[in-house]
Amino acid sequence: MEVWEAIFKRRSIRSFRDEPVDNNLLIKLVEAAIWAPSGSNIQPWHFIAVSCEEQKAKIKPFAPGLTGMPPALLVICTDLALCERKGGRLGRDVLSLMDAAFAAQNINLMACELGLGTCVIRSFNQGAIQEILRLPPQLVPQLIVSVGYPERVPQAPKRRSVQEVMSWERYG
Amino acid sequence: MEVWEAIFKRRSIRSFRDEPVDNNLLIKLVEAAIWAPSGSNIQPWHFIAVSCEEQKAKIKPFAPGLTGMPPALLVICTDLALCERKGGRLGRDVLSLMDAAFAAQNINLMACELGLGTCVIRSFNQGAIQEILRLPPQLVPQLIVSVGYPERVPQAPKRRSVQEVMSWERYG
Repeated sequence: MEVWEAIFKRRSIRSFRDEPVDNNLLIKLVEAAIWAPSGSNIQPWHFIAVSCEEQKAKIKPFAPGLTGMPPALLVICTDLALCERKGGRLGRDVLSLMDAAFAAQNINLMACELGLGTCVIRSFNQGAIQEILRLPPQLVPQLIVSVGYPERVPQAPKRRSVQEVMSWERYG
Repeated sequence: MEVWEAIFKRRSIRSFRDEPVDNNLLIKLVEAAIWAPSGSNIQPWHFIAVSCEEQKAKIKPFAPGLTGMPPALLVICTDLALCERKGGRLGRDVLSLMDAAFAAQNINLMACELGLGTCVIRSFNQGAIQEILRLPPQLVPQLIVSVGYPERVPQAPKRRSVQEVMSWERYG
């Protein structure tokens, strides 16, 4: 699939077929993620693939952003201690979030190419997820990506037009 | 270009040929950007394309992350007032940064497909850039993306391996 096609066709998928996602595909998604840019090349990320029913059932009540029960979750975490050591406050408060997002978008687009659907959520209780995944204190879950085979691909949500969101040389 | 190829071949480009980037290509990059996911579909972004020499020369001293003088810059801004109104503190402090990063990664990959090179930087004086671009106070520059035709494509930086950054079901 060409890049432009994945970019325009990618939708946030919230309903999945009842079909597991092979571990090799989850590895491919993480391979794509680690080639995302990383501020100061810190690469503070850690990815937890969750597909066992028991773990998903524990996570679900703490993740209101999760609709239904996706076959797999990729939890993108960043190491805040490492970010702070290498990038100071900017590293901890900004790059840690942006790096998680860069990685997530690679996962979204790669998934699209592999025929998978994804949805990125931030609406979850970070402390609870940290405990369920037995993350060390410095490793903070930043985003959860649902992964599975789409049951229904929703219509594109309304987008603001390029004319509305783009200026030349200066604002307005 | 296929998605996996763009993901793995994309490098941060810091030296560009002395050749302008057509405005239509800059529009294509912003079209790609606005199809990135946006937390709560807020779409808080505004993109300023800068290619006039005078504006670039004003920006340069306030952007230590910029190496050389790229033919064009895309400044990705987010509207913090809008983020806060629609998403509270999470919107202002987190989604505003992540949305900028999602959009930036679409720009990076689309540029790759178009034969352009990019480099995303965060190392700049936000207040100074805001003034130079005459941004209203709520519109904050989050990332600057250099855009141009690569003169030299650097070797891939060392990446942490998938084995090192991935766990199954729980950490470790």
